Amino acid sequence: MSRLTSRAPAVLNLGIAGFAEAIAAAGGKAAQLDWQPPAAGDRAAGMALARLTGHPAVEAANRKAFEAFLASAPVLRTVMPARETLAGLGERTLLHAGPPVAWRDMCGPMQGAAAGAMLYEGWAADAGAARALAERGEVRFEPAHDRGAVGPMAGIISPSMPLWVVEDAARGARAFSNFNEGLGKALRFGAYGPEVLARLKWIERALAPAMGAALAALGGVELKPLMAQALGMGDEVHNRNAAASGLLLRRLAGALARSGGGGAALGEVLEFVAGNEHFFLNISMAACKAMLGAAHGVSGSSLVTAMSRNGREFGIRVSGLGGRWFTAPARPIDGLYFAGYSAADAALDLGDSAITETAGLGGFAMAAAPAIVKFVGGTPADAVANSLRMRHIAQGESNIFQLPALDFRGTASGIDARKVVDTGIEPVINTGIAHREPGIGQIGAGITRAPLACFVQAVVALDAELGRTP
Amino acid sequence: MSRLTSRAPAVLNLGIAGFAEAIAAAGGKAAQLDWQPPAAGDRAAGMALARLTGHPAVEAANRKAFEAFLASAPVLRTVMPARETLAGLGERTLLHAGPPVAWRDMCGPMQGAAAGAMLYEGWAADAGAARALAERGEVRFEPAHDRGAVGPMAGIISPSMPLWVVEDAARGARAFSNFNEGLGKALRFGAYGPEVLARLKWIERALAPAMGAALAALGGVELKPLMAQALGMGDEVHNRNAAASGLLLRRLAGALARSGGGGAALGEVLEFVAGNEHFFLNISMAACKAMLGAAHGVSGSSLVTAMSRNGREFGIRVSGLGGRWFTAPARPIDGLYFAGYSAADAALDLGDSAITETAGLGGFAMAAAPAIVKFVGGTPADAVANSLRMRHIAQGESNIFQLPALDFRGTASGIDARKVVDTGIEPVINTGIAHREPGIGQIGAGITRAPLACFVQAVVALDAELGRTP
Repeated sequence: MSRLTSRAPAVLNLGIAGFAEAIAAAGGKAAQLDWQPPAAGDRAAGMALARLTGHPAVEAANRKAFEAFLASAPVLRTVMPARETLAGLGERTLLHAGPPVAWRDMCGPMQGAAAGAMLYEGWAADAGAARALAERGEVRFEPAHDRGAVGPMAGIISPSMPLWVVEDAARGARAFSNFNEGLGKALRFGAYGPEVLARLKWIERALAPAMGAALAALGGVELKPLMAQALGMGDEVHNRNAAASGLLLRRLAGALARSGGGGAALGEVLEFVAGNEHFFLNISMAACKAMLGAAHGVSGSSLVTAMSRNGREFGIRVSGLGGRWFTAPARPIDGLYFAGYSAADAALDLGDSAITETAGLGGFAMAAAPAIVKFVGGTPADAVANSLRMRHIAQGESNIFQLPALDFRGTASGIDARKVVDTGIEPVINTGIAHREPGIGQIGAGITRAPLACFVQAVVALDAELGRTP
Repeated sequence: MSRLTSRAPAVLNLGIAGFAEAIAAAGGKAAQLDWQPPAAGDRAAGMALARLTGHPAVEAANRKAFEAFLASAPVLRTVMPARETLAGLGERTLLHAGPPVAWRDMCGPMQGAAAGAMLYEGWAADAGAARALAERGEVRFEPAHDRGAVGPMAGIISPSMPLWVVEDAARGARAFSNFNEGLGKALRFGAYGPEVLARLKWIERALAPAMGAALAALGGVELKPLMAQALGMGDEVHNRNAAASGLLLRRLAGALARSGGGGAALGEVLEFVAGNEHFFLNISMAACKAMLGAAHGVSGSSLVTAMSRNGREFGIRVSGLGGRWFTAPARPIDGLYFAGYSAADAALDLGDSAITETAGLGGFAMAAAPAIVKFVGGTPADAVANSLRMRHIAQGESNIFQLPALDFRGTASGIDARKVVDTGIEPVINTGIAHREPGIGQIGAGITRAPLACFVQAVVALDAELGRTP
């Protein structure tokens, strides 16, 4: 006892910082360790988590889902119009990013992109008529995810748009994404001016057929090795696709020349791809959708197979819980803004592109991309810290996506909803920032986190699901 | 005194480790700090160094040379045959890597490459006749550096070979390099079989004119920004040029299509470039030669403007000492060998490619290229340590070549021969390893260091030079 009182107290304090501060104020030593109770103190969720933790059926299901994820082999196979690719896509249907959202609830960029797609399809003569069409309920809206498709930002896909078709060679299933239009004024940010529509028509008429012919000549391009190579070249294949876009061009350039006409038309195609460092983003997303498709639908699995945002809500899907979305309000982005813009101009978190983080890339792979901090903010040390931190909520590590700066360890992969709820560590996401008004475009890029509340709901639902099936 | 003797001794030992070991053996504590006297204990060189250290004329000259180095603006301007580009290049003249070396003293790969060039030029009908020609002294050999040219490994340049022409837009001076043939059997490693000669003829006939036309259409490609971008994509633009080669292809592809014929001929050109991750190496070398040309010839400057190896000797040039070479025996390479080969098969250090390290790239920029350790050996931490260590012997940091992993600090640049002699820190060099026999090719890659002896000679020579011109 005398030994205990003869020295100044030295305390390790977990959780509420006030205790440690009081000790320090009294001249003692106190080390503060951040901690919060699982499920943010939600008692029902905490009980559900306790039942799921170490649950043999969940553990087995997660191993099975994770193995399928690792075994998936996405191949960029061909290009086809959405109406041919997505069976049963109605003529007056538009796909959008994120969980379901009605026209009236869509954010500015998504409404703008939807109006632009109606103009592109010839359903309306001007933006006013397009809006009226939607307001009258004459356009059907569905989440792209429901049809195995993904699109960045607004993620609007209309029947005439050409889609990249990615096939999982391990099981034959397919995933889809639209074409990337480049930076600046683009449909995905809600722009729908004449130059935006003209570019979409050129993509449909010139770019997509050229790409389809080149892919046919090559028999497809294996995407995991290409993306792994890009990680060794400073990409995280979400907000930074400079290397991956270049690698794809390297793979396709010769075939484009051999199968295409040459001259100015070919020059235009090559220059469009060469001039867009985000060209590969949509392909990366479709590849990730294909990988996670392999992990989806395993009964009892708590692994997350989609994270996505519609600009109003953030939603996740979980392998063992079918097509259900678990949602929470979409968040603002902490990021760097282009000159002349600020957080006050920004739309909330938007787009299907968080499918890359769901697959252990993007924010999870930031350690591979130190230069990205010039785009999304922070320091190279923060980028490494994010990759390390995500290990706490992951089922395992990728067997192909390596982080050179972390001694070639695989990226943290297979987000376990249980671990997110247990640790309170929210998945980190690199993302672009759209202007809140339609038609303006990207105004910055930054980092956000998937809301804990989505994962809490999923854990409660999985516990209920397991309780029903003894 | 009692305080001194009442405790076990705690010693910081500089230099010879034996003292520290003796103290440790006697139960004391001794921290060992590696140190060696300047100039490796060479008294005359030490005196020369003392006179040059802080010498106002040298300091001013180095600032001037370094500013010219930073201000240089290499542009890939065009492609021309060596005989047109290098004024006065004799018809029976071959350029080679490194300091001067006679035919009989050349290493195997260089003799093989020289014989191959004679066959390529039609000077001889077979390798035996080519060797006889050289032995009879009917072929003149000159260092490529003497004509502003650089070539990797054997570095053989013959009159018909097309050369990249890099122009320093800041002063109009030009530097040159030959075309990269890809890995495997290649002239630069001493191979001269029919497929090697056929590829060289195709480069002359098809690739070089296509590149020349594309560059003419573009008006040239600025190389510093491209190389800086490549550093942000995991290249150090010596042994790793995957990103830079892709970036160059991106810049040229559209112009190649617009200025070329299209179809299979264009496809072949695009596929050759796309299939060779080292394609940019020779251009990187010519760019570095142009940058260092700007720093060369400043009276009194101790900055190193060339480091190169002929497979027998390592040589350096110094800005204030004109065309003189300061040489030492070439060293073996500490590296990773391809399957089936070992150090016993290896040629000594070879090639002009250390011009990249002289410009603060390659080994100096390894922190940008963690993935290169899979090629040259070591760990990502070693790569960072090399970049940090080189700061001790450099005049300053690059104003454009940044290392993302080191918080975007510029690469250590402007090797000061005085600092090398003072610290004993030898410049680090990433390099390929050629088989010692001609005709086999590359058998590995690794790391070596420029011999201190070259820098000691240069310091003594600069001191003598300054003594003569009061």
